[in-house]
Amino acid sequence: MTTSTFENPLYALFADAETAAEFAPARTVERYGAVEAALTRALAAVGIIDAAAAAPILAAIADFAPDWAAFAADGLTDGLPGPSYVRQLKARVPAQWRAAVHLGATSQDIMDTAQALTLQAVNARLAARLDGVIAGLDGLAARWGEAPLMARTRMQAALPIAMGARIASWRDPLARQQTRFAGVRADVECVELAGPVGTGEAWGAHAAALRRAVAEALALSDPGGSRQSGRDGLVTYGGWLATTCGALGKIGIDVALMAQQGIEAVALSGGGTSSAMAHKRNPVGAEILVTLARYAAAQQGALQQAMVHEQERSGMAWSLEWLALPQLCMSAGSALGTAGTLLHAIASMGEAPAA
Amino acid sequence: MTTSTFENPLYALFADAETAAEFAPARTVERYGAVEAALTRALAAVGIIDAAAAAPILAAIADFAPDWAAFAADGLTDGLPGPSYVRQLKARVPAQWRAAVHLGATSQDIMDTAQALTLQAVNARLAARLDGVIAGLDGLAARWGEAPLMARTRMQAALPIAMGARIASWRDPLARQQTRFAGVRADVECVELAGPVGTGEAWGAHAAALRRAVAEALALSDPGGSRQSGRDGLVTYGGWLATTCGALGKIGIDVALMAQQGIEAVALSGGGTSSAMAHKRNPVGAEILVTLARYAAAQQGALQQAMVHEQERSGMAWSLEWLALPQLCMSAGSALGTAGTLLHAIASMGEAPAA
Amino acid sequence: MTTSTFENPLYALFADAETAAEFAPARTVERYGAVEAALTRALAAVGIIDAAAAAPILAAIADFAPDWAAFAADGLTDGLPGPSYVRQLKARVPAQWRAAVHLGATSQDIMDTAQALTLQAVNARLAARLDGVIAGLDGLAARWGEAPLMARTRMQAALPIAMGARIASWRDPLARQQTRFAGVRADVECVELAGPVGTGEAWGAHAAALRRAVAEALALSDPGGSRQSGRDGLVTYGGWLATTCGALGKIGIDVALMAQQGIEAVALSGGGTSSAMAHKRNPVGAEILVTLARYAAAQQGALQQAMVHEQERSGMAWSLEWLALPQLCMSAGSALGTAGTLLHAIASMGEAPAA
Amino acid sequence: MTTSTFENPLYALFADAETAAEFAPARTVERYGAVEAALTRALAAVGIIDAAAAAPILAAIADFAPDWAAFAADGLTDGLPGPSYVRQLKARVPAQWRAAVHLGATSQDIMDTAQALTLQAVNARLAARLDGVIAGLDGLAARWGEAPLMARTRMQAALPIAMGARIASWRDPLARQQTRFAGVRADVECVELAGPVGTGEAWGAHAAALRRAVAEALALSDPGGSRQSGRDGLVTYGGWLATTCGALGKIGIDVALMAQQGIEAVALSGGGTSSAMAHKRNPVGAEILVTLARYAAAQQGALQQAMVHEQERSGMAWSLEWLALPQLCMSAGSALGTAGTLLHAIASMGEAPAA
Repeated sequence: MTTSTFENPLYALFADAETAAEFAPARTVERYGAVEAALTRALAAVGIIDAAAAAPILAAIADFAPDWAAFAADGLTDGLPGPSYVRQLKARVPAQWRAAVHLGATSQDIMDTAQALTLQAVNARLAARLDGVIAGLDGLAARWGEAPLMARTRMQAALPIAMGARIASWRDPLARQQTRFAGVRADVECVELAGPVGTGEAWGAHAAALRRAVAEALALSDPGGSRQSGRDGLVTYGGWLATTCGALGKIGIDVALMAQQGIEAVALSGGGTSSAMAHKRNPVGAEILVTLARYAAAQQGALQQAMVHEQERSGMAWSLEWLALPQLCMSAGSALGTAGTLLHAIASMGEAPAA
Repeated sequence: MTTSTFENPLYALFADAETAAEFAPARTVERYGAVEAALTRALAAVGIIDAAAAAPILAAIADFAPDWAAFAADGLTDGLPGPSYVRQLKARVPAQWRAAVHLGATSQDIMDTAQALTLQAVNARLAARLDGVIAGLDGLAARWGEAPLMARTRMQAALPIAMGARIASWRDPLARQQTRFAGVRADVECVELAGPVGTGEAWGAHAAALRRAVAEALALSDPGGSRQSGRDGLVTYGGWLATTCGALGKIGIDVALMAQQGIEAVALSGGGTSSAMAHKRNPVGAEILVTLARYAAAQQGALQQAMVHEQERSGMAWSLEWLALPQLCMSAGSALGTAGTLLHAIASMGEAPAA
Repeated sequence: MTTSTFENPLYALFADAETAAEFAPARTVERYGAVEAALTRALAAVGIIDAAAAAPILAAIADFAPDWAAFAADGLTDGLPGPSYVRQLKARVPAQWRAAVHLGATSQDIMDTAQALTLQAVNARLAARLDGVIAGLDGLAARWGEAPLMARTRMQAALPIAMGARIASWRDPLARQQTRFAGVRADVECVELAGPVGTGEAWGAHAAALRRAVAEALALSDPGGSRQSGRDGLVTYGGWLATTCGALGKIGIDVALMAQQGIEAVALSGGGTSSAMAHKRNPVGAEILVTLARYAAAQQGALQQAMVHEQERSGMAWSLEWLALPQLCMSAGSALGTAGTLLHAIASMGEAPAA
Repeated sequence: MTTSTFENPLYALFADAETAAEFAPARTVERYGAVEAALTRALAAVGIIDAAAAAPILAAIADFAPDWAAFAADGLTDGLPGPSYVRQLKARVPAQWRAAVHLGATSQDIMDTAQALTLQAVNARLAARLDGVIAGLDGLAARWGEAPLMARTRMQAALPIAMGARIASWRDPLARQQTRFAGVRADVECVELAGPVGTGEAWGAHAAALRRAVAEALALSDPGGSRQSGRDGLVTYGGWLATTCGALGKIGIDVALMAQQGIEAVALSGGGTSSAMAHKRNPVGAEILVTLARYAAAQQGALQQAMVHEQERSGMAWSLEWLALPQLCMSAGSALGTAGTLLHAIASMGEAPAA
């Protein structure tokens, strides 16, 4: 069962199994473990917990098997998975070391840092796909760049240009997004470790060192403080995803318009069939790029609302991220994948000059 | 694996298994079958297809087992499940009757009508839950209506009122939404049967009779024409869902504010725990109502964009519905369920008059 | 100076001077006066204020000249115009009758009821324009309904239809919106009279009679209670505006696509010029219909957020309406006006059947 | 008359006269002149136009008085002000030099570059205000940083912290936005000069030199190519505006919650009055920050849709920017101004530790 069209087998064109896999509950729970393990090691290293506590806790993490029924039952009253995870983990640790588990941390530390790991994996793939799409455009430019095209402004024939100019207008925004990505990634692929009210108080003078150590262990950046209620990095990242979808949506609408009978400025191999009109070849990949651009735009509208994050932690604003962010990642993942496929399906480009 | 937080076992508070079940792919395919069966019977009744064709087609529908791999493979090129379904169904029908399958119809007829059946089931549950929430509010009013409350405007103490006045401000919008629902439902629980370009041409003079017959067979309304590109009914329905979520969000924010230490105008039994602060009882149900209201508002922003539906059928605009609509239904279903639970968890209401 | 493109003389195509005039500050202040006058008469009629108070108050209202500097100065601290208006009005009333001014009412009563009068005037015009657009479509259908058109699905040529079928797909959603409008209007063209915390307490047993009397005097409906924090009617109205813009946006995108060289299924007289390409005739009216549909969709996303209206009156949520609602009204007014002009500019429709 | 609440004298709290002035039509027309002047000088410098043409054209620009009636009349058919401006300008140039006016350029070159100048002026002010808000927070931290505050998570009392921690959670996102601003500004404070279809063809080998020269003359950056249809820079900028509004909205909601009776963690001087409850002091500035954050979030949702910019120039997508962008700038300008005022109105912070 699924209410996410991205994972509905009836809508395979939207699928992005690789990105979806990063959001799988089991994968997420593994990442909770990775974060708790890094924290445990760091706590032991600075001496906040007994060095002897680390091994049994790490063993419990390594052997951890999620109790899904417990997650489901606990989630109803807790509203988030963190407390249940810690409870389940502690139950697997010998009683004498239980107090050392998750010491000084809060659910948001674990969940946000696990999410940073998820986004790290997602982003690596998005970056590679973006490279691929740009390479695809370069290939098309090399092959069809000299072909003639009637430039169109306001949907009206304007002046003849070379196909390469149109392709450049597709490539440039993506190249700029590629350049912007490094900064954006650093802002979300970062550790969160600040304790129940964002001050890391339980760790005293060790707080910054712990955060650095956990960041290093997980290959995340150290933001130098808490972002528990400061969500600008995440929201800026969402904007990057939506804008990338938008840049791909521009390619989509252009290809769909070029594929019209009467215009015929692109020929696609493959393409959608119709249950009623066997002769039709629909540019479904081009269309879906437009759809995903519009959908992602609206999801970013939702994510922007999450900036109004009251006090030290807002259940209202933070949980809005949980709903919007995976859909944004899926939109970008699916759009980049579809764009890559679409570009490869282009059999020819350019049109005869208007008589 | 799921990228929809509504179905992620780590986020059980958002779950609405009953509503989600209506969107399950297998359930959807069953509904494709129900629609094709009704169409087949109607086509036979008016004599467009041979009466002898009906039985083998109906048998194939009854025995239909989805070939998910085929759906996935076909979906990549078709962009939607309709053609694959028809292909699979035809393959199960003896060759001589295959031309009678789906005769004159188009994928959108089957998919939109199946969606009408999905929404019919979803809506019946939403209506019942809405009744329940209103009854819950009536119960609270009966029990706590006389309790004193400091009215607050612009978050500031204003004048004392009775708790019943606040409860009435929660109930009235929901009661109005209940009244509005009948008209809204008729507009989406309706048949679509108009053929490949919306004119039902293949059916000639029988088109209207066929549409009526299929509507009757499926207990749907007959819109009297095609809505293949006229999505105002669906979008208005989405507005109803979002507005209902909003009305519940008002209850949520009020309860969360009443539950603050220093205000204490409501006491909740149960309530969320904290992984770091064992003494805390968080009003997680109240918070999630706000979250869902904001999320649904943004999804409706997406659905409104789907009104720009070009020509006889837009792959861009129609597929935007596929992404936004299930999330809107889940938001409303989850919010109504959570609201019901929240109201039952209220142990007392009202506050001591300010000194 | 203006930051609203609807009133910027550089963007005349977006202008709707008639609708904009209804939102003019001076017009709004007149309506505050109309509401206070109706309230004063009603208060005198039921005997809450001295009958002798009415005449001087009504005279002060009739002679009221807004002190804009006072509005500007007061607005900075009050956050809304109501208190300044009442202050200015009281200053014009002899001291002995001042306590009878605005007695028992609150700023929101005056402002929301004045807004109901604004929307009543706006809506009458929208309704007339909608009638006109539908009549324009009927005229086009009569003149060009038989002309051939290649139906297009997913932007691809599908099957030939008559132009009348396309025109019907434009008309049907608008006709349904016309039908829906009556119910929607009743929900916003209604009086608000509920006092500082929504209970009308100062008026005791007379509260309902006063509300009815004010409603009657202003030709508004009586909602039978307070809607100070229950904004479902207003938000549903916003949905109607956005959906109407969307239905017109569908006409816009279709006309823009039909006007393409290579398709040429519509000929427009007039049409935009280019500073660089003298030969071009741009379908600017068609394009703007799409723009307004997308803009209105996003504004409705904003207005939906205003449902989360905490406590008895939310400065956060209510003021969000002030930003989004005029823009939605302008979008609908401008789109209906532009659509009317566009339809009249159509010189011919239909295309030669594909060879 | 105004339908923009930002300029409505009844809603002075939303006003930002300085930012609004930058969008004034007369100011915009002056900037068209600045762009045409820079272009004229550059064209003469490279020898594309006769050196003798420059003086009369520059004189006509210097003396230019907008014919508003012409803008209004032309705008109805052109859909944008560029052609009318060029027409008016040419009419003021001796006939022999007219062909040299605007040579090779298109309306979008002039309008987008003029907009870059507008944003440059707007951004300089936003940057200064942002500095001021951060300085205001530093002042509050210095004065009240040690005061005790009960941290709240999920609206519930959590653990005591110092007021300085809360203030840091307000400051950090703004400081990060400050850092991000440089990159964002470069992307919108850039010249557009690419001719009717984005290829600058009329200028041949001089195109890049012309663009650089105009950029230098106007103190804008040179993007190294055309961004006529590549709107990622502008949309990313809109995201910065919305995210900044969101960061200020977090301050707003926190202050409004702290100002509640029963919490009393902040005391504000001044503050809103009520027409009905003279004792009330409403935290109207804090509320409006939340309003503007939510409004800006929705406007950014609109602007993101403008990424789907078809072909060489989209009347649909480009004109969506005209509606959304000024409102986003006003939101940010108004929010930064209001935040500055709000911080100065804080008379004390911190609360007595819970008993």
